[in-house]
Amino acid sequence: MPTPTPADKFSFGLWTMGWQARDQFGDATRGPLDPVEAVNRLAEAGAYGITFHDDDLVPFGSADAERDSILAAFKGALEQTGLKVPMATTNTFSHPVFKDGAFTASEIDIRRYALRKIMRNMDLAAELGAETYVMWGGREGAESDSSKDVRVALQRYKEGVDLLCQYVVDKGYGMRLAIEPKPNEPRGDILLPSIGHAISFISMLERPEMVGINPEVGHEQMAGLNMVHGVAQALWQGKLFHVDLNGQTGPRYDQDFVFGHGDVKSAFFLVDLLESTDAQGNPAYDGPRHFDYKPYRTDDYADVWDSVRSNMVTYLMLKKRAAAFRADPEVQEALAASGADELAKPALAHGETWQDLLADRSAFEDYDVEAAGAKGKHYTRLDQLALEHLTGFRG
Amino acid sequence: MPTPTPADKFSFGLWTMGWQARDQFGDATRGPLDPVEAVNRLAEAGAYGITFHDDDLVPFGSADAERDSILAAFKGALEQTGLKVPMATTNTFSHPVFKDGAFTASEIDIRRYALRKIMRNMDLAAELGAETYVMWGGREGAESDSSKDVRVALQRYKEGVDLLCQYVVDKGYGMRLAIEPKPNEPRGDILLPSIGHAISFISMLERPEMVGINPEVGHEQMAGLNMVHGVAQALWQGKLFHVDLNGQTGPRYDQDFVFGHGDVKSAFFLVDLLESTDAQGNPAYDGPRHFDYKPYRTDDYADVWDSVRSNMVTYLMLKKRAAAFRADPEVQEALAASGADELAKPALAHGETWQDLLADRSAFEDYDVEAAGAKGKHYTRLDQLALEHLTGFRG
Amino acid sequence: MPTPTPADKFSFGLWTMGWQARDQFGDATRGPLDPVEAVNRLAEAGAYGITFHDDDLVPFGSADAERDSILAAFKGALEQTGLKVPMATTNTFSHPVFKDGAFTASEIDIRRYALRKIMRNMDLAAELGAETYVMWGGREGAESDSSKDVRVALQRYKEGVDLLCQYVVDKGYGMRLAIEPKPNEPRGDILLPSIGHAISFISMLERPEMVGINPEVGHEQMAGLNMVHGVAQALWQGKLFHVDLNGQTGPRYDQDFVFGHGDVKSAFFLVDLLESTDAQGNPAYDGPRHFDYKPYRTDDYADVWDSVRSNMVTYLMLKKRAAAFRADPEVQEALAASGADELAKPALAHGETWQDLLADRSAFEDYDVEAAGAKGKHYTRLDQLALEHLTGFRG
Amino acid sequence: MPTPTPADKFSFGLWTMGWQARDQFGDATRGPLDPVEAVNRLAEAGAYGITFHDDDLVPFGSADAERDSILAAFKGALEQTGLKVPMATTNTFSHPVFKDGAFTASEIDIRRYALRKIMRNMDLAAELGAETYVMWGGREGAESDSSKDVRVALQRYKEGVDLLCQYVVDKGYGMRLAIEPKPNEPRGDILLPSIGHAISFISMLERPEMVGINPEVGHEQMAGLNMVHGVAQALWQGKLFHVDLNGQTGPRYDQDFVFGHGDVKSAFFLVDLLESTDAQGNPAYDGPRHFDYKPYRTDDYADVWDSVRSNMVTYLMLKKRAAAFRADPEVQEALAASGADELAKPALAHGETWQDLLADRSAFEDYDVEAAGAKGKHYTRLDQLALEHLTGFRG
Repeated sequence: MPTPTPADKFSFGLWTMGWQARDQFGDATRGPLDPVEAVNRLAEAGAYGITFHDDDLVPFGSADAERDSILAAFKGALEQTGLKVPMATTNTFSHPVFKDGAFTASEIDIRRYALRKIMRNMDLAAELGAETYVMWGGREGAESDSSKDVRVALQRYKEGVDLLCQYVVDKGYGMRLAIEPKPNEPRGDILLPSIGHAISFISMLERPEMVGINPEVGHEQMAGLNMVHGVAQALWQGKLFHVDLNGQTGPRYDQDFVFGHGDVKSAFFLVDLLESTDAQGNPAYDGPRHFDYKPYRTDDYADVWDSVRSNMVTYLMLKKRAAAFRADPEVQEALAASGADELAKPALAHGETWQDLLADRSAFEDYDVEAAGAKGKHYTRLDQLALEHLTGFRG
Repeated sequence: MPTPTPADKFSFGLWTMGWQARDQFGDATRGPLDPVEAVNRLAEAGAYGITFHDDDLVPFGSADAERDSILAAFKGALEQTGLKVPMATTNTFSHPVFKDGAFTASEIDIRRYALRKIMRNMDLAAELGAETYVMWGGREGAESDSSKDVRVALQRYKEGVDLLCQYVVDKGYGMRLAIEPKPNEPRGDILLPSIGHAISFISMLERPEMVGINPEVGHEQMAGLNMVHGVAQALWQGKLFHVDLNGQTGPRYDQDFVFGHGDVKSAFFLVDLLESTDAQGNPAYDGPRHFDYKPYRTDDYADVWDSVRSNMVTYLMLKKRAAAFRADPEVQEALAASGADELAKPALAHGETWQDLLADRSAFEDYDVEAAGAKGKHYTRLDQLALEHLTGFRG
Repeated sequence: MPTPTPADKFSFGLWTMGWQARDQFGDATRGPLDPVEAVNRLAEAGAYGITFHDDDLVPFGSADAERDSILAAFKGALEQTGLKVPMATTNTFSHPVFKDGAFTASEIDIRRYALRKIMRNMDLAAELGAETYVMWGGREGAESDSSKDVRVALQRYKEGVDLLCQYVVDKGYGMRLAIEPKPNEPRGDILLPSIGHAISFISMLERPEMVGINPEVGHEQMAGLNMVHGVAQALWQGKLFHVDLNGQTGPRYDQDFVFGHGDVKSAFFLVDLLESTDAQGNPAYDGPRHFDYKPYRTDDYADVWDSVRSNMVTYLMLKKRAAAFRADPEVQEALAASGADELAKPALAHGETWQDLLADRSAFEDYDVEAAGAKGKHYTRLDQLALEHLTGFRG
Repeated sequence: MPTPTPADKFSFGLWTMGWQARDQFGDATRGPLDPVEAVNRLAEAGAYGITFHDDDLVPFGSADAERDSILAAFKGALEQTGLKVPMATTNTFSHPVFKDGAFTASEIDIRRYALRKIMRNMDLAAELGAETYVMWGGREGAESDSSKDVRVALQRYKEGVDLLCQYVVDKGYGMRLAIEPKPNEPRGDILLPSIGHAISFISMLERPEMVGINPEVGHEQMAGLNMVHGVAQALWQGKLFHVDLNGQTGPRYDQDFVFGHGDVKSAFFLVDLLESTDAQGNPAYDGPRHFDYKPYRTDDYADVWDSVRSNMVTYLMLKKRAAAFRADPEVQEALAASGADELAKPALAHGETWQDLLADRSAFEDYDVEAAGAKGKHYTRLDQLALEHLTGFRG
């Protein structure tokens, strides 16, 4: 079995292991987790980093002295273990004040409060060396289309993000921001519901280059969208700033299973993508492999630490299988037979114009469209080769 | 019952009424439809326009003489009835040659053939006065993530659309292009699966201002996405170039029901949105209200013409109900009570900076977060008022 | 606007109005609700009944004296208002002890504890005159298929329900039991996930006649299943013992919206079905119209009481529209034209055998299958008539 | 790589390999397949059987002489190869006459025609030695709830199936009937949409013991239902008469991928279940492992034969992995730790009554519910062990 090391850049949310398993229909089954223990356990397990919402680390409403004491202990543990804080984020969804949104709350004072809460935790994030600041707008949304004029709400959303970018620039924090899309839950519909909607939104910002996305496996799959395709589009657009790995079994409530414990074939191809460069020579993703999952409510803490390991081991198993898949000469042959190499070339030759294309009778008038349509693409074989690698029967 | 007139700007795809009801599991139940009859029937019914794929009007592979004769008859009918052709599009999905894509086919010659087929129909579209040229990439996609490197495929997609924009500009056609997103079917996953993904893609083009989207009710709802929210985002980004109205009952096969015959409450709010301006004074949508639906396979042609009328009447019924909803003083009061007016105002006063916000103790240190969180938003009441209007119990 | 009265048989779960709006991602936004106030408010609003889980009324772990005092106050309020308790149920899902099921927990002692908890509340239910005892097995399920052998788990489930039936019979309680299916949430998959699975299970019991189902709108729609079809099958099988009305917008988390605030067209046809008899003369449903919904988390208590009214008013609005739809001569004509009357007649004449059918050449050899296939069914028209009634443009 | 042999009991529908790849949006990409070639190819590939709809083998409307000649050739190939026909079925969905159903068509003459068509093919099925006769009611359903009174339609459905059972009994055919559920497509909603609904329906028949189900992986997953749980319930109820294996990626159109090419983890547990007995000693499934899939539309015939092999090899790979999973001592230990053994025992001791349970203070009054709730179930570990076996990292 592969063994995780910090070089693998695995990170975990403090709120994942620390989730006490209180859900919509039931009470907590686990007690609270000391952040220091979380740091120590992660370091022992071979992780690279830990991430947090402000309120995960310092309970909402803590007095300054309590805050200071918690932070001192946390920093001490980080120092001792060498664990990094590559990312931080703000809880703008649990407290009742955010029940109808933070960036898009109707009330000006709630929006101002939210911005202040975020800025405060950005200061801490910068101090801890975080390179990415994630924003999940879990309460930006509505149950009924009567509730909000989304055009107006998006304008407010933009203003908030623009202000935070200005803050980061002026403060010299050097962080990049990453929006985390989700289609629904806890709101009936959430604004910026998919990878696509979030990148579209970013194109409207004052500093689009500072803002990217933090897609989550389960969030895309809740809408039946293909996570691998979405991440590939984000990579193509230079917008994959961070990634949340977990498991989900299609459109239903947000399950947050261990990575790979949902659709394992999609997980295989996601790892394959994250570990690869494309034929156009664009750079690969080199940020943290961040796990945003929830240990089962039936787990006790021994199970929780087992689940931490499971996330990392699963990633490494899939990485090994994906590498063997790519290296297999039969796979390369099948890819070539499907025309993958030709896809890397533009339709028009260098310098060719539409006028040239129009003049090329072989392109249309004399093209044997029936012969071209009869050619097999061999994708079944390719997919079967993937499965034979995934299951360890090849390589 | 309201009566449709050309001023309502209702348009229909020739392929909708003309669908012979051959589906995945069964044979055609209706004979072919003469395009001239389609024009005449639509004009009689009060429609504004008719739209088509190249192959709907002129069967694939027709000889030039046949093509000329069909076009002459079609133009004659348009002239006689005054029906417009506000939009046209290309069939790049039915013929086997496109089985693995047109813009993103691996084979260069297939991509070249597709571009030529599109350019040819753009010429016709321009001649007939179309203002919008739609592109639905129904075969741009994959069943297995092993099949295509999506990063590379999107680069090819971009090159194709860039070339077409150049063609339109050079030819002086004055058309705008509109991409129609769809999550899946007939491919396992289709590239540009949602409104968001399509707008994101457009931001990468050489002439992003020339290209917008043509969202379809059912396509968004197949992914469980909120069509009203998606269209609102498109309006906010200035990207709603065209719209496809129909009905769907959630994630399943593409149903293409009559508009409003799926989720009628969502249809009510969609009409409400399409007929409105926002609080920021952005312009409303003023393009065609285009129906892209399929008459039931159990319908005969009398039923088909009934379904044409049903689309338009339903739109007008919902328009009337939505107008009464907006005009109702109780609704305005409920909206005000929910804080809708305040949403129209930025969080920071004119000229205020983050430094000012940081200095404002009332925004954070002295803010009564519990009191703010306890305030009711009254959205239940607003939603119930909408339902009472939709069902005609008010107004 | 129609006004609810007890004759309409509307009932509400105590847990619906009393939900404090603590969800998976956020804290409570409302304080606790006194059961006596719930009774009084419902009675004022025109409701017929109130229902409860044991722990809704008497908090888990209450001392006997506290329990007695709560029950006395509750009974007093019932007596004073005349509100009924037509149904009760047990909470076998919130406490950690039930985290892996009650009837299907692996541990014998947990199953025994669950049975005792249910029997105890059955005693109270009987005392309060409840005619139906509902069982929602929210924790009977699994996240991974490795967790449970479902064949074995179902055998345990059966033994538990059989024992409870024996208990009810021996005690002379006269209650019927009703299983409430749900596909998932809070478990990854829940046993007996749909109306169909629950009725199938019931056919395996020792006393199948004592056990029926309590289907919930949102639970079926979470699986994309047609609630109206499911309830019709339950009626046909004599198994609709109770019904949970609410709103949902397709496959996603359990939304529990106000009835009709999800798919209103489906709600229209559900009311139409619940208020009708069939052409075969089977009896109609005459049990309570029970609302199992959650007021929005953005609601304050004024909004909550508004939502109580909204459920009932919506039902009555739809009832009025459905009655007008059925009474409309154009609808009757369209139904007749679609062949609805002929559906009420068996394919074989009285006394006819398969031998007779085989001998009838007009049935096969001489049958004009093409002519029969060409006949239009006019369902578009019927559906449009429904929509015109639903929106109040007819009748 | 494992090699399929007839002892594995793999069978294929003639319509699967023979699908010409005409879909909702495109023309055929492959030519017709000679049934004799199908038989020969399957036999070469190591399959056990071939199955068919009447119209797959003998085109609808063939003259008697043509029919005889096709059948003679087919029987000859079967004899020569030893390939079996373990199942047959009727096409009651492609021809326009069935556009609104066969068993539940409103028109009596259509229902009679359908029964005759089925009886005719049952004769052939019996002659060829089929043990199971499958019925997929693909057109029994509706797009709008206004179309059919489902209570009445189900009564007609029952009468039809009852008649066919009588026919089989009287003819001494010895076949069992199997209903194949599907939630939707090609109808908006199909009657008997899930495993559960079908078994419920069967309980209403005159000869319930003669009728079981033929569940299909993709059909259950289109509704987000757990195929493994559904098949386990069917096994528990003695109703798994046949099974359709293929692949699907959640709620969307019916994809009919190669088995395992959708949710491979679910496929792993399905094979595990099909190859196992339960702790109660009920018999395992011993019918054919039948593949009902569609080769990709991008496939040519070489790819098609590759896909035939892929289905069988994938099943065998998963079978090997599942066997190793069950044999692994760590898995057995984890299962024991989760309490799986205890699940095999009833809650009440032999002879114990509810009175005894009520008298047992240790079961309730003295039960330490908090301690019981704190126990970890270790399902994460079990699930991870399954994944490590599935990917070939263990065993």
